[in-house]
Amino acid sequence: MAALAPSVGHAQPWRFVRVTDRRAALADHVDAANAAAAQRYEGERAVAYRALKLHGLREAPEILAVWSDERPSAGHGLGIATMPEMLRYSTVMAIHTLWLAARSESIGVGWVSILDPESVAHLLDVPAHWTLIAILCLGYPAETSRVPELERRGWQGREPLSVDRR
Amino acid sequence: MAALAPSVGHAQPWRFVRVTDRRAALADHVDAANAAAAQRYEGERAVAYRALKLHGLREAPEILAVWSDERPSAGHGLGIATMPEMLRYSTVMAIHTLWLAARSESIGVGWVSILDPESVAHLLDVPAHWTLIAILCLGYPAETSRVPELERRGWQGREPLSVDRR
Repeated sequence: MAALAPSVGHAQPWRFVRVTDRRAALADHVDAANAAAAQRYEGERAVAYRALKLHGLREAPEILAVWSDERPSAGHGLGIATMPEMLRYSTVMAIHTLWLAARSESIGVGWVSILDPESVAHLLDVPAHWTLIAILCLGYPAETSRVPELERRGWQGREPLSVDRR
Repeated sequence: MAALAPSVGHAQPWRFVRVTDRRAALADHVDAANAAAAQRYEGERAVAYRALKLHGLREAPEILAVWSDERPSAGHGLGIATMPEMLRYSTVMAIHTLWLAARSESIGVGWVSILDPESVAHLLDVPAHWTLIAILCLGYPAETSRVPELERRGWQGREPLSVDRR
């Protein structure tokens, strides 16, 4: 399903890796990155940060690492001459497709970004022209809600929507 | 619908601009970028490139410019310390949500990336901390197909799907 997402030049740059053997090492790396990120907060915000569940790398039944293949030959270069980031954006649409497909089966997806992409590339030993886009934790959620957790916990509320005109 | 997409730190960084008055200037800019991009191809590939319909900026009933607000305060910085690109990826998920919602109403969406983002930011006079993610052409398609146009025209075929394991 994910691989049916739209992509720039029909390049289909997404690459998926199931993380199995190296899961513990990945979890340790994210814990360290998370400890460093926590230092950025003070007072009540620091307390709120530490109370958040920011990854499920040890307990989720399935871990996926998703990469964007940056070969310029993909899609014969169509649409990436001035916006090479379009390959990465195409991979994001594949991730979002996977995410929505998972939700339709009541499976939850957590996107982990508290990590150093270069370190994860080294840890998972992927080709040099692959760029890390996401680490995903998949599983059946312990609880569900129509309101995002960060909203329920008072971290960040819903922004008003405005559409400008030019 | 687009604004209900998931976002890093619940930052909701997406910003939408309806392009109305400046549509002709935008179309002229994309035509120029397209002429420059066409120079990269030779022989049959150049002929194939010139036969592609790469934007509908003059005829689509609705044009949207979508931006990512790069204020680091968004979502109180959660999840963007080491991967600031997560704000842009969140905006891509909002675009993809809009795209799927449009398709469910039989509306087609074309994502135009043959342009210079800085020039478009200047043309549409947006705040300096907004990054252009997409120019979208929306409308009812003249024809529909379950096979992507670039596949039908022999530009780029469907890639085999493989999932690695680490």
